[in-house]
Amino acid sequence: MNEPVLAGLLTDRYELTMLAAALHDGTANRRTTFELFARRLPDGRRYGVVAGTGRLLETLPQFRFDDDACGLLARFLDPDTVGYLRDFRFGGDIDGYAEGELYFPGSPVLSVTGSFADCVVLETLALSIFNHDTAIASAAARMVSAAEDRPLIEMGSRRTHERAAVAAARAAYIAGFAATSNLGAQRRYGIPTEGTAAHAFTMLHTREGGPAEITELAAFRAQVDALGAATTLLVDTYDVTTGVANAVAAAGTELGAVRIDSGELAVLARQVREQLDGLGATRTRIVVSGDLDEFSIAALRAEPVDSFGVGTSLVTGSGAPTASMVYKLVEVDGMPVQKRSSHKETRGGRKEALRLARPTGTITEEVVYPAGRPPQTAEPCRALTTALVRGGEVVSRPDLAAARELVASGLHSLPWEGLNLSHGEPAIPTTHIPT
Amino acid sequence: MNEPVLAGLLTDRYELTMLAAALHDGTANRRTTFELFARRLPDGRRYGVVAGTGRLLETLPQFRFDDDACGLLARFLDPDTVGYLRDFRFGGDIDGYAEGELYFPGSPVLSVTGSFADCVVLETLALSIFNHDTAIASAAARMVSAAEDRPLIEMGSRRTHERAAVAAARAAYIAGFAATSNLGAQRRYGIPTEGTAAHAFTMLHTREGGPAEITELAAFRAQVDALGAATTLLVDTYDVTTGVANAVAAAGTELGAVRIDSGELAVLARQVREQLDGLGATRTRIVVSGDLDEFSIAALRAEPVDSFGVGTSLVTGSGAPTASMVYKLVEVDGMPVQKRSSHKETRGGRKEALRLARPTGTITEEVVYPAGRPPQTAEPCRALTTALVRGGEVVSRPDLAAARELVASGLHSLPWEGLNLSHGEPAIPTTHIPT
Repeated sequence: MNEPVLAGLLTDRYELTMLAAALHDGTANRRTTFELFARRLPDGRRYGVVAGTGRLLETLPQFRFDDDACGLLARFLDPDTVGYLRDFRFGGDIDGYAEGELYFPGSPVLSVTGSFADCVVLETLALSIFNHDTAIASAAARMVSAAEDRPLIEMGSRRTHERAAVAAARAAYIAGFAATSNLGAQRRYGIPTEGTAAHAFTMLHTREGGPAEITELAAFRAQVDALGAATTLLVDTYDVTTGVANAVAAAGTELGAVRIDSGELAVLARQVREQLDGLGATRTRIVVSGDLDEFSIAALRAEPVDSFGVGTSLVTGSGAPTASMVYKLVEVDGMPVQKRSSHKETRGGRKEALRLARPTGTITEEVVYPAGRPPQTAEPCRALTTALVRGGEVVSRPDLAAARELVASGLHSLPWEGLNLSHGEPAIPTTHIPT
Repeated sequence: MNEPVLAGLLTDRYELTMLAAALHDGTANRRTTFELFARRLPDGRRYGVVAGTGRLLETLPQFRFDDDACGLLARFLDPDTVGYLRDFRFGGDIDGYAEGELYFPGSPVLSVTGSFADCVVLETLALSIFNHDTAIASAAARMVSAAEDRPLIEMGSRRTHERAAVAAARAAYIAGFAATSNLGAQRRYGIPTEGTAAHAFTMLHTREGGPAEITELAAFRAQVDALGAATTLLVDTYDVTTGVANAVAAAGTELGAVRIDSGELAVLARQVREQLDGLGATRTRIVVSGDLDEFSIAALRAEPVDSFGVGTSLVTGSGAPTASMVYKLVEVDGMPVQKRSSHKETRGGRKEALRLARPTGTITEEVVYPAGRPPQTAEPCRALTTALVRGGEVVSRPDLAAARELVASGLHSLPWEGLNLSHGEPAIPTTHIPT
């Protein structure tokens, strides 16, 4: 694919010049921990959903520098540093939240421990993956929660970078979407795909002088002929009422679904349901799409909509296209370190976290504590920090089904106000136990 | 790289089921034109910058389906359709705006002509590339214009998908950014890279019981020792004034640059300039970064800032992470076609465009007209539609330098109010000559 860039080069230049300086003065071997976390949730959000863990773990073994990459590096790095990178394999440990876990401000989502040389070079790749995937999963979870039990289809590939689209489909699936339109995501991650129909297909059946309703009927007949009556017909190319009549005329009352992609969806959904029922197509489902987001999905909850197709707002994180996670050095040779830049403070020391809950399962508090020193608690609690990599070897296999279950149980565990779509504070407070 | 998905599969499932239905009823051979355009600019923007053309052209030859892909397709497509896709190579024509060209609402940015089968399958890939790259280039051009002649460095890789980051660096460079931090973009597209320094490198030099200023001085000495005095030292890990003093102590008055990444940048830039000058480091440059966007860049225009590092706002399109371009069937066998869905009308017919200007070069109007029928005009004008692909063969070589020049001349050609950062109407009106 276009001579894909090796994962090692998906990196900012300054990480490698810092590595060069650290190799030069011997500090590259100091034992360090870097922490990946978000200082805050996107404006007004009450929770976030961790995604990207699986993609980082699958990319880690490919974080290498081949001869070609080393040729590029030699233009600005000394031979010792290039030699180090030529042999590079991450040899450290990674701990972190399982993929699909909820997170809050300051949650130590990932903790990377090893020599400075091992850890510093992963900064850009780890942040790229987590900032993208987490932004999508966090927005997607709100849509899933807004849709209650109705299925959502991810259709946003066309609104984002073509490779990001595959990762976005994966993140949406983790968050609870039922399917994606993206075939690459099916190929790469086994995510179920669904498809409906295109306005272009209807208009393709235009004949000189033929009226729109004849064009549409011809297109619907062709689609049903080729794909069967269980297909989804797109009824809003011209006039929705005529479209529904044509759809049932073409497919009969066993028609799988109709899709409405424009207009006042609430009004149209009711009209179309009534029309379908009147025509005897009582089991034909209604799929709506067209610039939906979590708010419009919630507003359609009372309407006879059977599933939602979501595109732009999903792949752009519904107003928060990046999760604002950072990757900060927190410990050097056992000493906690932190910077003091205004508004960008970090908390020093390697950390772990657990979450407290009521006996009912409703979560009440997140506790971030110095690694290895969990607080005593009488309440039910669950450890959030898990081992992901040990000595460079991945010890936790990515599991999309498990990540989906974790999101579902996480949403279930939120206090009721945590599921509000309106602006608010994080659903639970986080207590930071100092080192 | 992680068994990359072949370009053919970067596609929505429904395009291929529509293809199946069209092959089934023979309409797949009808001659069609699809147009890629934006109905509107992002809210309040006055112009957009086309980017993605080069990436589409380089990806087109790889838009194929191998055995593995066909195995997946066979799960939901009939054997004839799978056979067709196994042999697929785009055989049509593509016309469009050159990469780097300005665009406005309704500009026919890309026009894809060929059999329905040829054209329909490119929808997702073309939109993904243009929606992403154009969103970045359009935001980047506003930042370039806000910075006037001061160089901008793209540093946003960590805030977007790791592969999108490479395309974002490319789009920013087209728009006029001087460099990127992303090594993949240098490897893939020859874009110049730059790097500064990391807070982590300073904190790495922490010694038990040692005060912050000693840590910082040790780090700066190590960096200068390894990378030379021309390096950029990051002075805001602890206290900026101490940081600047340490920087000059470590590197001498020949220090290349200092970087400030947090705090009140305007105030700090003035203080730091004064301090550097007082220390004799009169040629040491000041690089600022930290959540900059076009507005904060403009606000820093009066300050002694030598270059800007821009991250999050760049890669997220500064509030408009997707360009909202659509790909619509506009012509079938020579007949203009258009849908009538509410608020989503299209204008039928294959189109071309030209742009009128005053004798001074200031542009005044964009004219979109039926292909092959340019209007007569007495004013100076420039054709915007160029041949990109003929019979499946790319006839226009991507040229980043030319695209950069086109953006620069495009910005120069805007009427003065077109460069305003505030919300407003498109900088010039567009006249649509009906078919």
